[in-house]
Amino acid sequence: MELSTAQKALAEQPFSVLLGARLTAFGDGAAVLELDVRPDLLQQNGFLHGGVLSYAADNALTFAAGAAAGPHLLTAGFTIDYLRPARGRVLRARAQVVRAGRSRVVCRCDLLMVDEEGVESLCAVAQGAISTVGGADGA
Amino acid sequence: MELSTAQKALAEQPFSVLLGARLTAFGDGAAVLELDVRPDLLQQNGFLHGGVLSYAADNALTFAAGAAAGPHLLTAGFTIDYLRPARGRVLRARAQVVRAGRSRVVCRCDLLMVDEEGVESLCAVAQGAISTVGGADGA
Amino acid sequence: MELSTAQKALAEQPFSVLLGARLTAFGDGAAVLELDVRPDLLQQNGFLHGGVLSYAADNALTFAAGAAAGPHLLTAGFTIDYLRPARGRVLRARAQVVRAGRSRVVCRCDLLMVDEEGVESLCAVAQGAISTVGGADGA
Amino acid sequence: MELSTAQKALAEQPFSVLLGARLTAFGDGAAVLELDVRPDLLQQNGFLHGGVLSYAADNALTFAAGAAAGPHLLTAGFTIDYLRPARGRVLRARAQVVRAGRSRVVCRCDLLMVDEEGVESLCAVAQGAISTVGGADGA
Repeated sequence: MELSTAQKALAEQPFSVLLGARLTAFGDGAAVLELDVRPDLLQQNGFLHGGVLSYAADNALTFAAGAAAGPHLLTAGFTIDYLRPARGRVLRARAQVVRAGRSRVVCRCDLLMVDEEGVESLCAVAQGAISTVGGADGA
Repeated sequence: MELSTAQKALAEQPFSVLLGARLTAFGDGAAVLELDVRPDLLQQNGFLHGGVLSYAADNALTFAAGAAAGPHLLTAGFTIDYLRPARGRVLRARAQVVRAGRSRVVCRCDLLMVDEEGVESLCAVAQGAISTVGGADGA
Repeated sequence: MELSTAQKALAEQPFSVLLGARLTAFGDGAAVLELDVRPDLLQQNGFLHGGVLSYAADNALTFAAGAAAGPHLLTAGFTIDYLRPARGRVLRARAQVVRAGRSRVVCRCDLLMVDEEGVESLCAVAQGAISTVGGADGA
Repeated sequence: MELSTAQKALAEQPFSVLLGARLTAFGDGAAVLELDVRPDLLQQNGFLHGGVLSYAADNALTFAAGAAAGPHLLTAGFTIDYLRPARGRVLRARAQVVRAGRSRVVCRCDLLMVDEEGVESLCAVAQGAISTVGGADGA
Protein backbone atom coordinates (compact mmCIF):
# COMPACT_ATOMS: atom_id res chain seq x y z
CA MET A 1 0.00 0.00 0.00
CA GLU A 2 1.33 3.45 -0.89
CA LEU A 3 0.98 6.76 0.93
CA SER A 4 -1.71 7.92 -1.50
CA THR A 5 -3.75 4.75 -0.91
CA ALA A 6 -3.44 5.15 2.85
CA GLN A 7 -4.48 8.80 2.57
CA LYS A 8 -7.57 7.68 0.64
CA ALA A 9 -8.35 5.21 3.45
CA LEU A 10 -8.04 7.99 6.03
CA ALA A 11 -10.33 10.23 3.98
CA GLU A 12 -12.98 7.50 4.19
CA GLN A 13 -13.13 7.90 7.98
CA PRO A 14 -15.65 10.69 8.66
CA PHE A 15 -14.29 11.21 12.19
CA SER A 16 -10.76 11.71 10.85
CA VAL A 17 -12.15 14.26 8.38
CA LEU A 18 -13.98 16.03 11.21
CA LEU A 19 -10.70 16.35 13.12
CA GLY A 20 -8.71 17.39 10.05
CA ALA A 21 -6.26 14.50 10.31
CA ARG A 22 -3.77 13.87 7.51
CA LEU A 23 -1.18 11.17 6.85
CA THR A 24 2.23 12.67 6.04
CA ALA A 25 4.24 9.45 5.93
CA PHE A 26 3.37 5.80 5.42
CA GLY A 27 5.53 2.77 4.71
CA ASP A 28 8.08 0.33 6.11
CA GLY A 29 5.97 -0.41 9.15
CA ALA A 30 5.57 3.21 10.13
CA ALA A 31 3.06 6.02 9.77
CA VAL A 32 2.90 9.71 10.68
CA LEU A 33 -0.51 11.25 11.28
CA GLU A 34 -0.90 14.99 11.86
CA LEU A 35 -3.64 17.47 12.59
CA ASP A 36 -3.75 21.22 13.12
CA VAL A 37 -4.72 22.48 16.54
CA ARG A 38 -8.09 24.25 16.34
CA PRO A 39 -10.19 25.92 19.04
CA ASP A 40 -12.81 23.17 18.86
CA LEU A 41 -10.24 20.45 19.67
CA LEU A 42 -9.23 21.91 23.05
CA GLN A 43 -10.10 21.14 26.65
CA GLN A 44 -11.05 23.66 29.33
CA ASN A 45 -7.53 25.03 29.89
CA GLY A 46 -6.70 25.73 26.28
CA PHE A 47 -4.64 22.59 25.69
CA LEU A 48 -5.39 19.96 23.06
CA HIS A 49 -7.97 17.58 24.56
CA GLY A 50 -6.61 14.20 25.69
CA GLY A 51 -9.29 12.60 23.54
CA VAL A 52 -7.67 14.10 20.43
CA LEU A 53 -4.32 12.64 21.48
CA SER A 54 -5.91 9.25 22.10
CA TYR A 55 -7.69 9.39 18.71
CA ALA A 56 -4.35 10.14 17.05
CA ALA A 57 -2.61 7.34 18.93
CA ASP A 58 -5.32 4.84 17.98
CA ASN A 59 -5.27 5.79 14.33
CA ALA A 60 -1.51 6.17 13.91
CA LEU A 61 -0.89 2.80 15.59
CA THR A 62 -3.35 1.16 13.21
CA PHE A 63 -1.95 2.82 10.07
CA ALA A 64 1.59 1.81 11.09
CA ALA A 65 0.32 -1.77 11.40
CA GLY A 66 -1.28 -1.39 7.98
CA ALA A 67 2.07 -0.36 6.55
CA ALA A 68 3.38 -3.78 7.58
CA ALA A 69 0.35 -6.07 7.39
CA GLY A 70 -2.03 -4.64 4.79
CA PRO A 71 -5.44 -3.03 5.05
CA HIS A 72 -7.57 -5.69 6.77
CA LEU A 73 -7.02 -4.75 10.39
CA LEU A 74 -8.91 -4.06 13.58
CA THR A 75 -7.45 -2.13 16.49
CA ALA A 76 -7.43 -4.56 19.43
CA GLY A 77 -6.46 -2.03 22.09
CA PHE A 78 -3.83 0.40 23.26
CA THR A 79 -2.35 2.19 26.24
CA ILE A 80 -1.54 5.89 26.38
CA ASP A 81 0.49 7.78 28.99
CA TYR A 82 0.21 11.56 28.96
CA LEU A 83 3.46 13.40 29.68
CA ARG A 84 2.71 17.12 29.62
CA PRO A 85 -0.05 19.54 28.55
CA ALA A 86 -0.37 19.52 24.77
CA ARG A 87 0.10 23.03 23.40
CA GLY A 88 1.35 24.08 19.98
CA ARG A 89 0.27 24.43 16.39
CA VAL A 90 0.27 20.84 15.12
CA LEU A 91 -0.13 17.40 16.68
CA ARG A 92 2.19 14.84 15.09
CA ALA A 93 1.74 11.14 15.90
CA ARG A 94 4.67 8.97 14.82
CA ALA A 95 3.92 5.25 15.04
CA GLN A 96 6.01 2.24 14.15
CA VAL A 97 5.64 -1.50 14.20
CA VAL A 98 7.52 -3.33 16.95
CA ARG A 99 6.56 -6.75 15.65
CA ALA A 100 4.19 -7.92 12.95
CA GLY A 101 3.01 -11.44 13.78
CA ARG A 102 0.66 -13.52 11.71
CA SER A 103 -2.50 -12.35 13.43
CA ARG A 104 -1.36 -9.55 15.73
CA VAL A 105 0.79 -6.48 15.13
CA VAL A 106 2.26 -4.59 18.09
CA CYS A 107 3.20 -0.93 17.59
CA ARG A 108 4.47 2.05 19.55
CA CYS A 109 3.60 5.70 19.02
CA ASP A 110 5.13 9.05 20.04
CA LEU A 111 2.70 11.97 20.24
CA LEU A 112 4.46 15.28 19.67
CA MET A 113 3.28 18.86 19.63
CA VAL A 114 4.96 21.11 17.07
CA ASP A 115 5.22 24.81 17.84
CA GLU A 116 5.37 27.83 15.51
CA GLU A 117 9.12 27.32 14.99
CA GLY A 118 8.70 23.66 14.15
CA VAL A 119 10.14 22.51 17.47
CA GLU A 120 8.68 19.21 18.65
CA SER A 121 7.82 18.37 22.24
CA LEU A 122 6.80 14.88 23.31
CA CYS A 123 3.37 15.02 25.01
CA ALA A 124 2.28 11.39 25.21
CA VAL A 125 3.43 7.86 24.39
CA ALA A 126 1.31 4.92 23.37
CA GLN A 127 1.64 1.18 22.77
CA GLY A 128 -1.00 -0.98 21.15
CA ALA A 129 -1.99 -4.17 19.37
CA ILE A 130 -3.78 -4.47 16.05
CA SER A 131 -5.45 -7.69 14.90
CA THR A 132 -5.39 -8.91 11.34
CA VAL A 133 -8.93 -9.62 10.17
CA GLY A 134 -9.77 -13.24 9.54
CA GLY A 135 -8.25 -14.19 12.84
CA ALA A 136 -9.54 -11.38 15.01
CA ASP A 137 -12.18 -9.50 16.92
CA GLY A 138 -12.04 -5.84 17.82
CA ALA A 139 -13.08 -2.46 16.51
CA MET B 1 -19.40 18.66 43.16
CA GLU B 2 -22.90 18.11 41.83
CA LEU B 3 -24.08 16.84 38.46
CA SER B 4 -24.92 20.35 37.28
CA THR B 5 -21.41 21.58 38.19
CA ALA B 6 -19.82 18.65 36.37
CA GLN B 7 -22.02 19.33 33.35
CA LYS B 8 -20.79 22.92 33.36
CA ALA B 9 -17.20 21.65 33.43
CA LEU B 10 -17.90 19.38 30.46
CA ALA B 11 -19.47 22.29 28.54
CA GLU B 12 -16.18 24.18 28.98
CA GLN B 13 -14.35 21.55 26.90
CA PRO B 14 -14.75 22.62 23.26
CA PHE B 15 -13.85 19.11 22.03
CA SER B 16 -16.61 17.57 24.17
CA VAL B 17 -19.04 20.12 22.72
CA LEU B 18 -17.88 19.24 19.18
CA LEU B 19 -18.65 15.58 19.86
CA GLY B 20 -21.97 16.32 21.57
CA ALA B 21 -20.99 14.63 24.83
CA ARG B 22 -23.24 14.92 27.87
CA LEU B 23 -22.95 13.80 31.49
CA THR B 24 -26.03 11.89 32.61
CA ALA B 25 -24.83 10.82 36.04
CA PHE B 26 -22.14 12.04 38.41
CA GLY B 27 -21.44 11.26 42.04
CA ASP B 28 -20.21 8.66 44.52
CA GLY B 29 -17.04 8.03 42.53
CA ALA B 30 -18.86 7.33 39.30
CA ALA B 31 -19.82 9.14 36.12
CA VAL B 32 -21.82 8.33 33.00
CA LEU B 33 -20.95 10.17 29.79
CA GLU B 34 -23.06 9.75 26.65
CA LEU B 35 -23.09 10.95 23.09
CA ASP B 36 -25.36 10.38 20.12
CA VAL B 37 -23.95 8.52 17.16
CA ARG B 38 -23.67 10.89 14.17
CA PRO B 39 -22.38 10.30 10.64
CA ASP B 40 -19.32 12.45 11.26
CA LEU B 41 -18.21 10.28 14.21
CA LEU B 42 -17.90 7.07 12.21
CA GLN B 43 -15.02 5.16 10.67
CA GLN B 44 -14.88 3.72 7.15
CA ASN B 45 -17.22 0.76 7.79
CA GLY B 46 -20.05 2.73 9.38
CA PHE B 47 -19.14 1.93 13.00
CA LEU B 48 -18.36 4.52 15.64
CA HIS B 49 -14.67 5.42 15.30
CA GLY B 50 -12.37 3.91 17.93
CA GLY B 51 -11.12 7.43 18.61
CA VAL B 52 -14.61 8.41 19.80
CA LEU B 53 -14.62 5.45 22.17
CA SER B 54 -11.16 6.34 23.46
CA TYR B 55 -12.23 9.99 23.93
CA ALA B 56 -15.25 8.79 25.93
CA ALA B 57 -13.11 6.45 28.02
CA ASP B 58 -10.57 9.20 28.77
CA ASN B 59 -13.22 11.71 29.77
CA ALA B 60 -15.52 9.35 31.70
CA LEU B 61 -12.56 7.97 33.68
CA THR B 62 -11.53 11.50 34.61
CA PHE B 63 -15.03 12.64 35.58
CA ALA B 64 -15.46 9.52 37.75
CA ALA B 65 -12.21 10.45 39.47
CA GLY B 66 -13.54 13.97 39.89
CA ALA B 67 -16.62 12.58 41.60
CA ALA B 68 -14.29 11.19 44.28
CA ALA B 69 -11.37 13.60 44.36
CA GLY B 70 -12.62 17.00 43.24
CA PRO B 71 -11.99 19.07 40.15
CA HIS B 72 -8.19 19.53 40.13
CA LEU B 73 -7.16 16.50 38.12
CA LEU B 74 -5.03 15.48 35.19
CA THR B 75 -5.50 12.24 33.28
CA ALA B 76 -2.25 10.30 33.69
CA GLY B 77 -3.04 7.55 31.22
CA PHE B 78 -5.37 4.71 30.36
CA THR B 79 -5.74 1.42 28.53
CA ILE B 80 -8.63 0.50 26.26
CA ASP B 81 -9.51 -2.92 24.82
CA TYR B 82 -12.02 -2.98 22.00
CA LEU B 83 -14.47 -5.89 22.09
CA ARG B 84 -16.74 -5.59 19.05
CA PRO B 85 -17.67 -3.09 16.34
CA ALA B 86 -19.55 -0.16 17.89
CA ARG B 87 -22.94 0.24 16.25
CA GLY B 88 -26.10 1.74 17.73
CA ARG B 89 -27.76 5.00 18.51
CA VAL B 90 -25.95 6.18 21.63
CA LEU B 91 -22.51 5.60 23.17
CA ARG B 92 -22.69 5.30 26.95
CA ALA B 93 -19.46 5.31 29.00
CA ARG B 94 -19.93 4.19 32.62
CA ALA B 95 -16.87 4.83 34.76
CA GLN B 96 -16.24 4.24 38.42
CA VAL B 97 -13.43 4.72 40.88
CA VAL B 98 -11.58 1.59 41.96
CA ARG B 99 -9.43 3.43 44.48
CA ALA B 100 -8.93 7.09 45.25
CA GLY B 101 -5.48 7.56 46.75
CA ARG B 102 -4.01 10.83 47.91
CA SER B 103 -2.39 11.72 44.61
CA ARG B 104 -3.65 9.09 42.18
CA VAL B 105 -7.14 7.80 41.42
CA VAL B 106 -7.58 4.53 39.51
CA CYS B 107 -10.84 3.95 37.63
CA ARG B 108 -12.48 1.47 35.29
CA CYS B 109 -14.90 2.20 32.47
CA ASP B 110 -17.39 0.15 30.43
CA LEU B 111 -18.18 1.49 26.96
CA LEU B 112 -21.62 0.43 25.80
CA MET B 113 -23.58 1.02 22.62
CA VAL B 114 -27.31 1.50 23.08
CA ASP B 115 -29.60 0.51 20.22
CA GLU B 116 -33.04 1.83 19.20
CA GLU B 117 -34.75 -0.38 21.81
CA GLY B 118 -32.43 0.79 24.59
CA VAL B 119 -30.54 -2.50 24.68
CA GLU B 120 -26.91 -2.07 25.73
CA SER B 121 -24.02 -3.97 24.23
CA LEU B 122 -20.50 -3.78 25.70
CA CYS B 123 -18.06 -2.61 23.00
CA ALA B 124 -14.90 -1.73 24.91
CA VAL B 125 -13.44 -1.68 28.42
CA ALA B 126 -10.90 0.73 29.85
CA GLN B 127 -8.79 1.20 32.95
CA GLY B 128 -6.89 4.35 33.82
CA ALA B 129 -5.15 6.53 36.36
CA ILE B 130 -5.87 10.16 37.11
CA SER B 131 -3.45 12.38 39.03
CA THR B 132 -4.53 14.98 41.54
CA VAL B 133 -2.97 18.32 40.69
CA GLY B 134 -0.38 19.61 43.12
CA GLY B 135 1.31 16.25 43.15
CA ALA B 136 1.19 15.35 39.48
CA ASP B 137 2.15 15.76 35.86
CA GLY B 138 0.01 14.74 32.91
CA ALA B 139 -2.52 16.22 30.54
CA MET C 1 -12.40 -28.07 31.49
CA GLU C 2 -12.92 -28.71 35.20
CA LEU C 3 -11.13 -27.25 38.21
CA SER C 4 -9.02 -30.38 38.65
CA THR C 5 -7.89 -30.23 35.01
CA ALA C 6 -7.00 -26.57 35.35
CA GLN C 7 -5.09 -27.33 38.56
CA LYS C 8 -3.14 -29.98 36.66
CA ALA C 9 -2.31 -27.39 33.99
CA LEU C 10 -1.07 -24.97 36.65
CA ALA C 11 1.08 -27.71 38.21
CA GLU C 12 2.81 -28.11 34.83
CA GLN C 13 4.14 -24.54 35.05
CA PRO C 14 7.42 -24.74 36.98
CA PHE C 15 7.33 -21.00 37.74
CA SER C 16 3.86 -21.31 39.28
CA VAL C 17 5.14 -24.21 41.40
CA LEU C 18 8.14 -22.09 42.48
CA LEU C 19 5.76 -19.36 43.66
CA GLY C 20 3.37 -21.79 45.32
CA ALA C 21 0.37 -20.71 43.25
CA ARG C 22 -2.90 -22.64 43.43
CA LEU C 23 -6.22 -22.41 41.62
CA THR C 24 -9.14 -22.29 44.05
CA ALA C 25 -11.93 -21.66 41.53
CA PHE C 26 -12.31 -22.21 37.82
CA GLY C 27 -15.34 -22.12 35.55
CA ASP C 28 -17.97 -19.93 33.89
CA GLY C 29 -15.36 -17.59 32.48
CA ALA C 30 -13.70 -16.95 35.82
CA ALA C 31 -10.72 -18.15 37.81
CA VAL C 32 -9.27 -17.51 41.25
CA LEU C 33 -5.53 -17.98 41.74
CA GLU C 34 -3.96 -17.73 45.19
CA LEU C 35 -0.54 -17.92 46.76
CA ASP C 36 0.76 -17.64 50.29
CA VAL C 37 2.98 -14.70 51.12
CA ARG C 38 6.53 -15.94 51.86
CA PRO C 39 9.69 -14.03 52.77
CA ASP C 40 11.28 -14.81 49.39
CA LEU C 41 8.39 -13.16 47.50
CA LEU C 42 8.82 -9.72 49.06
CA GLN C 43 10.44 -6.48 47.96
CA GLN C 44 12.78 -4.30 50.00
CA ASN C 45 10.11 -2.83 52.32
CA GLY C 46 8.51 -6.11 53.33
CA PHE C 47 5.56 -5.93 50.92
CA LEU C 48 4.77 -8.52 48.29
CA HIS C 49 6.88 -7.69 45.22
CA GLY C 50 5.00 -6.06 42.35
CA GLY C 51 6.37 -8.79 40.11
CA VAL C 52 4.44 -11.39 42.11
CA LEU C 53 1.26 -9.36 41.64
CA SER C 54 1.93 -9.03 37.91
CA TYR C 55 2.63 -12.79 37.66
CA ALA C 56 -0.70 -13.48 39.39
CA ALA C 57 -2.54 -11.04 37.13
CA ASP C 58 -1.03 -12.59 33.99
CA ASN C 59 -1.86 -16.13 35.05
CA ALA C 60 -5.31 -15.48 36.50
CA LEU C 61 -6.35 -13.54 33.40
CA THR C 62 -5.24 -16.42 31.20
CA PHE C 63 -6.95 -19.11 33.30
CA ALA C 64 -10.19 -17.09 33.28
CA ALA C 65 -9.94 -16.96 29.50
CA GLY C 66 -9.35 -20.71 29.51
CA ALA C 67 -12.53 -21.19 31.50
CA ALA C 68 -14.40 -19.66 28.55
CA ALA C 69 -12.33 -20.58 25.53
CA GLY C 70 -10.49 -23.81 26.29
CA PRO C 71 -6.85 -24.62 26.86
CA HIS C 72 -5.14 -23.43 23.65
CA LEU C 73 -4.34 -19.87 24.60
CA LEU C 74 -1.51 -17.39 24.60
CA THR C 75 -1.47 -14.27 26.76
CA ALA C 76 -1.34 -11.33 24.36
CA GLY C 77 -0.75 -8.63 26.95
CA PHE C 78 -2.14 -6.89 29.98
CA THR C 79 -2.14 -3.71 32.03
CA ILE C 80 -1.80 -3.53 35.80
CA ASP C 81 -2.38 -0.56 38.10
CA TYR C 82 -1.05 -0.86 41.65
CA LEU C 83 -3.30 0.66 44.30
CA ARG C 84 -1.57 0.20 47.65
CA PRO C 85 1.32 -1.72 49.23
CA ALA C 86 0.52 -5.44 49.25
CA ARG C 87 0.70 -6.80 52.79
CA GLY C 88 -1.13 -9.77 54.23
CA ARG C 89 -1.09 -13.53 54.41
CA VAL C 90 -2.44 -14.57 51.02
CA LEU C 91 -2.60 -13.02 47.56
CA ARG C 92 -5.91 -13.75 45.82
CA ALA C 93 -6.31 -12.92 42.13
CA ARG C 94 -9.92 -13.01 40.92
CA ALA C 95 -10.22 -12.82 37.14
CA GLN C 96 -13.24 -12.94 34.87
CA VAL C 97 -13.94 -12.80 31.18
CA VAL C 98 -15.39 -9.56 29.88
CA ARG C 99 -15.86 -10.88 26.35
CA ALA C 100 -14.79 -14.08 24.65
CA GLY C 101 -14.47 -13.43 20.92
CA ARG C 102 -13.50 -15.96 18.33
CA SER C 103 -9.78 -15.27 18.48
CA ARG C 104 -9.37 -12.91 21.42
CA VAL C 105 -10.64 -13.04 24.99
CA VAL C 106 -10.60 -9.87 27.13
CA CYS C 107 -10.59 -10.27 30.92
CA ARG C 108 -10.33 -8.19 34.07
CA CYS C 109 -8.66 -9.13 37.34
CA ASP C 110 -8.81 -7.88 40.93
CA LEU C 111 -5.71 -8.54 43.05
CA LEU C 112 -6.55 -8.76 46.73
CA MET C 113 -4.48 -9.31 49.83
CA VAL C 114 -6.10 -11.39 52.54
CA ASP C 115 -5.06 -10.78 56.14
CA GLU C 116 -5.03 -13.11 59.17
CA GLU C 117 -8.75 -12.52 59.76
CA GLY C 118 -9.66 -13.26 56.14
CA VAL C 119 -10.34 -9.61 55.34
CA GLU C 120 -9.59 -8.73 51.72
CA SER C 121 -8.01 -5.51 50.57
CA LEU C 122 -7.77 -4.58 46.90
CA CYS C 123 -4.11 -3.93 46.00
CA ALA C 124 -4.07 -3.85 42.20
CA VAL C 125 -6.36 -4.15 39.18
CA ALA C 126 -5.54 -5.55 35.77
CA GLN C 127 -7.06 -5.86 32.32
CA GLY C 128 -5.73 -8.04 29.54
CA ALA C 129 -6.23 -9.86 26.28
CA ILE C 130 -5.62 -13.54 25.59
CA SER C 131 -5.34 -14.94 22.08
CA THR C 132 -6.76 -18.28 21.04
CA VAL C 133 -4.07 -20.36 19.37
CA GLY C 134 -4.50 -21.01 15.68
CA GLY C 135 -5.23 -17.36 15.09
CA ALA C 136 -2.64 -15.79 17.34
CA ASP C 137 0.87 -14.82 18.33
CA GLY C 138 2.05 -14.11 21.84
CA ALA C 139 3.60 -15.87 24.76
CA MET D 1 22.95 6.84 42.37
CA GLU D 2 25.63 4.60 40.90
CA LEU D 3 25.37 1.09 39.45
CA SER D 4 26.80 -0.45 42.62
CA THR D 5 24.20 1.35 44.77
CA ALA D 6 21.41 0.22 42.48
CA GLN D 7 22.75 -3.34 42.59
CA LYS D 8 22.64 -3.17 46.39
CA ALA D 9 19.01 -2.01 46.19
CA LEU D 10 18.17 -4.95 43.92
CA ALA D 11 19.87 -7.36 46.32
CA GLU D 12 17.52 -6.12 49.06
CA GLN D 13 14.51 -7.46 47.14
CA PRO D 14 14.13 -11.12 48.16
CA PHE D 15 11.96 -11.86 45.10
CA SER D 16 14.67 -10.52 42.78
CA VAL D 17 17.20 -12.72 44.57
CA LEU D 18 14.89 -15.73 44.17
CA LEU D 19 14.74 -15.11 40.43
CA GLY D 20 18.47 -14.47 40.12
CA ALA D 21 18.04 -10.98 38.69
CA ARG D 22 21.05 -8.70 38.23
CA LEU D 23 21.50 -5.10 37.10
CA THR D 24 24.12 -4.82 34.36
CA ALA D 25 23.67 -1.13 33.55
CA PHE D 26 22.24 1.84 35.42
CA GLY D 27 22.41 5.56 34.74
CA ASP D 28 21.26 8.42 32.52
CA GLY D 29 17.61 7.44 32.88
CA ALA D 30 18.16 3.86 31.80
CA ALA D 31 18.64 0.44 33.37
CA VAL D 32 19.35 -3.07 32.13
CA LEU D 33 18.16 -5.99 34.25
CA GLU D 34 19.08 -9.57 33.36
CA LEU D 35 18.42 -13.05 34.62
CA ASP D 36 19.49 -16.51 33.53
CA VAL D 37 16.84 -18.86 32.25
CA ARG D 38 16.39 -21.75 34.70
CA PRO D 39 14.05 -24.75 34.62
CA ASP D 40 12.02 -23.37 37.54
CA LEU D 41 11.24 -20.14 35.66
CA LEU D 42 9.48 -21.81 32.73
CA GLN D 43 5.86 -22.36 31.77
CA GLN D 44 4.32 -25.61 30.56
CA ASN D 45 5.80 -25.51 27.04
CA GLY D 46 9.39 -24.90 28.07
CA PHE D 47 9.38 -21.14 27.45
CA LEU D 48 10.16 -18.52 30.06
CA HIS D 49 6.93 -17.85 31.99
CA GLY D 50 5.15 -14.60 31.09
CA GLY D 51 5.19 -13.77 34.80
CA VAL D 52 8.99 -13.67 34.71
CA LEU D 53 8.86 -11.27 31.78
CA SER D 54 6.31 -9.08 33.58
CA TYR D 55 8.45 -9.13 36.76
CA ALA D 56 11.46 -8.00 34.69
CA ALA D 57 9.42 -5.27 32.98
CA ASP D 58 8.10 -3.99 36.30
CA ASN D 59 11.52 -3.90 37.92
CA ALA D 60 13.50 -2.57 34.94
CA LEU D 61 10.98 0.23 34.40
CA THR D 62 11.28 1.23 38.04
CA PHE D 63 15.10 1.11 38.10
CA ALA D 64 15.23 3.23 34.93
CA ALA D 65 12.99 5.75 36.68
CA GLY D 66 15.33 5.60 39.67
CA ALA D 67 18.25 6.43 37.41
CA ALA D 68 16.50 9.72 36.63
CA ALA D 69 14.52 10.51 39.77
CA GLY D 70 16.30 8.92 42.72
CA PRO D 71 15.44 6.04 44.99
CA HIS D 72 12.08 7.06 46.50
CA LEU D 73 9.72 5.56 43.96
CA LEU D 74 6.62 3.41 43.69
CA THR D 75 5.60 1.63 40.51
CA ALA D 76 2.20 3.04 39.58
CA GLY D 77 1.43 0.59 36.79
CA PHE D 78 2.51 -0.75 33.45
CA THR D 79 1.40 -2.43 30.24
CA ILE D 80 3.13 -5.38 28.62
CA ASP D 81 2.56 -6.83 25.15
CA TYR D 82 4.04 -10.27 24.46
CA LEU D 83 5.48 -10.72 20.97
CA ARG D 84 6.78 -14.28 20.71
CA PRO D 85 7.57 -17.26 22.93
CA ALA D 86 10.55 -16.45 25.16
CA ARG D 87 13.30 -19.01 24.63
CA GLY D 88 17.03 -18.56 25.12
CA ARG D 89 19.72 -18.45 27.75
CA VAL D 90 19.28 -15.01 29.29
CA LEU D 91 16.42 -12.54 29.65
CA ARG D 92 17.57 -8.95 29.19
CA ALA D 93 15.20 -6.08 30.05
CA ARG D 94 16.34 -2.70 28.72
CA ALA D 95 14.33 0.19 30.13
CA GLN D 96 14.65 3.91 29.62
CA VAL D 97 12.90 7.04 30.81
CA VAL D 98 10.63 8.75 28.30
CA ARG D 99 9.91 11.68 30.59
CA ALA D 100 10.71 12.38 34.21
CA GLY D 101 8.11 14.78 35.58
CA ARG D 102 8.02 16.13 39.10
CA SER D 103 5.84 13.37 40.53
CA ARG D 104 5.56 10.83 37.72
CA VAL D 105 8.17 9.17 35.53
CA VAL D 106 7.11 7.40 32.33
CA CYS D 107 9.40 4.70 30.92
CA ARG D 108 9.52 2.12 28.14
CA CYS D 109 11.13 -1.30 28.24
CA ASP D 110 12.26 -3.84 25.64
CA LEU D 111 12.37 -7.47 26.82
CA LEU D 112 14.89 -9.50 24.86
CA MET D 113 15.94 -13.13 24.98
CA VAL D 114 19.62 -13.78 24.37
CA ASP D 115 20.62 -17.12 22.87
CA GLU D 116 23.84 -19.14 23.18
CA GLU D 117 25.53 -17.01 20.50
CA GLY D 118 24.53 -13.75 22.18
CA VAL D 119 21.89 -12.97 19.56
CA GLU D 120 18.99 -10.96 20.97
CA SER D 121 15.38 -11.48 20.02
CA LEU D 122 12.65 -9.08 21.16
CA CYS D 123 9.97 -11.03 23.07
CA ALA D 124 7.87 -8.34 24.74
CA VAL D 125 7.54 -4.58 25.08
CA ALA D 126 6.31 -2.61 28.06
CA GLN D 127 5.40 0.94 29.01
CA GLY D 128 4.79 2.15 32.55
CA ALA D 129 4.54 4.97 35.05
CA ILE D 130 6.44 5.29 38.31
CA SER D 131 5.42 7.71 41.05
CA THR D 132 7.85 9.68 43.14
CA VAL D 133 7.13 9.12 46.81
CA GLY D 134 5.82 12.10 48.74
CA GLY D 135 3.29 12.78 46.03
CA ALA D 136 2.16 9.27 45.24
CA ASP D 137 0.34 6.05 45.95
CA GLY D 138 1.19 2.69 44.47
CA ALA D 139 3.23 -0.38 45.20
